[in-house]
Amino acid sequence: SQEPPVKKSRKILSYRERGDLCQHPVAKQLFGIMESKKSNLAVSADLCTTAQILKLADEVGPHICMLKTHVDIISDFSAEFVQSLTELANRHEFLIFEDRKFADIGSTVQHQYRDGLFQIADWAHLINAHSLPGAGVLEGLKQVGLGKQRACLLIAEMSSQGNLATGEYTKATVKMAEEHQDFVVGFISQSQLSDNPAFIHMTPGVQLSGLGDGLGQQYVSPWDAVVTRRADVIIVGRGVYKDPDPATAAQSYQTAAFQAYQHRLTN
Amino acid sequence: SQEPPVKKSRKILSYRERGDLCQHPVAKQLFGIMESKKSNLAVSADLCTTAQILKLADEVGPHICMLKTHVDIISDFSAEFVQSLTELANRHEFLIFEDRKFADIGSTVQHQYRDGLFQIADWAHLINAHSLPGAGVLEGLKQVGLGKQRACLLIAEMSSQGNLATGEYTKATVKMAEEHQDFVVGFISQSQLSDNPAFIHMTPGVQLSGLGDGLGQQYVSPWDAVVTRRADVIIVGRGVYKDPDPATAAQSYQTAAFQAYQHRLTN
Repeated sequence: SQEPPVKKSRKILSYRERGDLCQHPVAKQLFGIMESKKSNLAVSADLCTTAQILKLADEVGPHICMLKTHVDIISDFSAEFVQSLTELANRHEFLIFEDRKFADIGSTVQHQYRDGLFQIADWAHLINAHSLPGAGVLEGLKQVGLGKQRACLLIAEMSSQGNLATGEYTKATVKMAEEHQDFVVGFISQSQLSDNPAFIHMTPGVQLSGLGDGLGQQYVSPWDAVVTRRADVIIVGRGVYKDPDPATAAQSYQTAAFQAYQHRLTN
Repeated sequence: SQEPPVKKSRKILSYRERGDLCQHPVAKQLFGIMESKKSNLAVSADLCTTAQILKLADEVGPHICMLKTHVDIISDFSAEFVQSLTELANRHEFLIFEDRKFADIGSTVQHQYRDGLFQIADWAHLINAHSLPGAGVLEGLKQVGLGKQRACLLIAEMSSQGNLATGEYTKATVKMAEEHQDFVVGFISQSQLSDNPAFIHMTPGVQLSGLGDGLGQQYVSPWDAVVTRRADVIIVGRGVYKDPDPATAAQSYQTAAFQAYQHRLTN
């Protein structure tokens, strides 16, 4: 008797299975953390002092797979801060993602990634880049990051009103990622863009309540992000760091997002 | 007898005439400098120490209308550096343009422009932004920059191979600029995109010789940039700062670009 063909593309793989399929050590490590901590939550630490960020990282650390930083908004950035943050990342087992959104030609982003006061390549497991400048942005970043076993996310879609990362732009971004899988491990996006299980989809602009911020930001819920839009990781900013109790808020987002993932696995 | 209608759009206005038409004080000031110094040359100071940048700024200062910086690649950035650079800008009469390429949602770029170690809004006459995130990026930057009488350039086209700032993307960028003329004074572009004489078009990737850099950069000559592509300001990086004699190199570019402008005026 003939068996029906297995519809492989419909099978939802677990984070563990996808980690096994990944080649890149950072992607493997991230899927491993997500599985073991039962967390597909990244928290944005959009705060302006090192003390605030370190306090937040310590409080939410047990609940997250990744902490997202904007080091260029910190008034007292220092090498000691990087060391303390790295210690917290090791203790609580999360990765550090510097949300630099590199968006210049290759020779410039090389410097921005490696040099200056921040020396991002030395401490950020993950960075992100806009595909806008063409493949040169990745070629420049790679020359710095590959040797340090760092990884990059390409921004394929944005959460802000009237943004231009749509249609052909998004398609070209996915193609660019496919052509640079030695460095690009996934996307910042508002929906699942690739069937390749090695690519991690991360969705920003997630909040349990709230419609926008008056500056064009548009929010979605954890359930919408994970179940409807098929995000692998949700990125929550103000919903956590503006909460009077960030640890409890992070726990709520962790539970909501992981239950949404489990629902996807079994439905 | 009837006179033929004046074809206003074909008349090439001088920098002085365009400065008179501008509303924004920074645009007015820039056109004034261009006219009085006979310079439509901006130099990129893509160097990694404050000493190198200040030395370059002092050497090329007499020949330029604007110095372009990337402060996040400087290993020893400090408040004293900003003060020294500002003094050189005043002495030699040039504007400072921080090539930050803001490319995030409004609430984030606000912090990146105002806060952190760089406090860009306090010293950069001009910054630039990608239109990619939508109008929120300008609304965020404006809340910081307008009160300080700062100005912004929108990146409408890029010089790198395979870049995605083309077609509809470029058109949407021009529209966004038209809707924010209180803050946007022009474009980073590879060609003239608007007939509005108040908008300044600046073209990067200009070099007297050289085809590319192996990381996707594609060069054009000063003549091509100004006459063929109708740039108002050329931005020269490696052609000046990598020259053993940057002052003489800057003078060559100044002459070439200003003669090209004078040719356009009279032909």
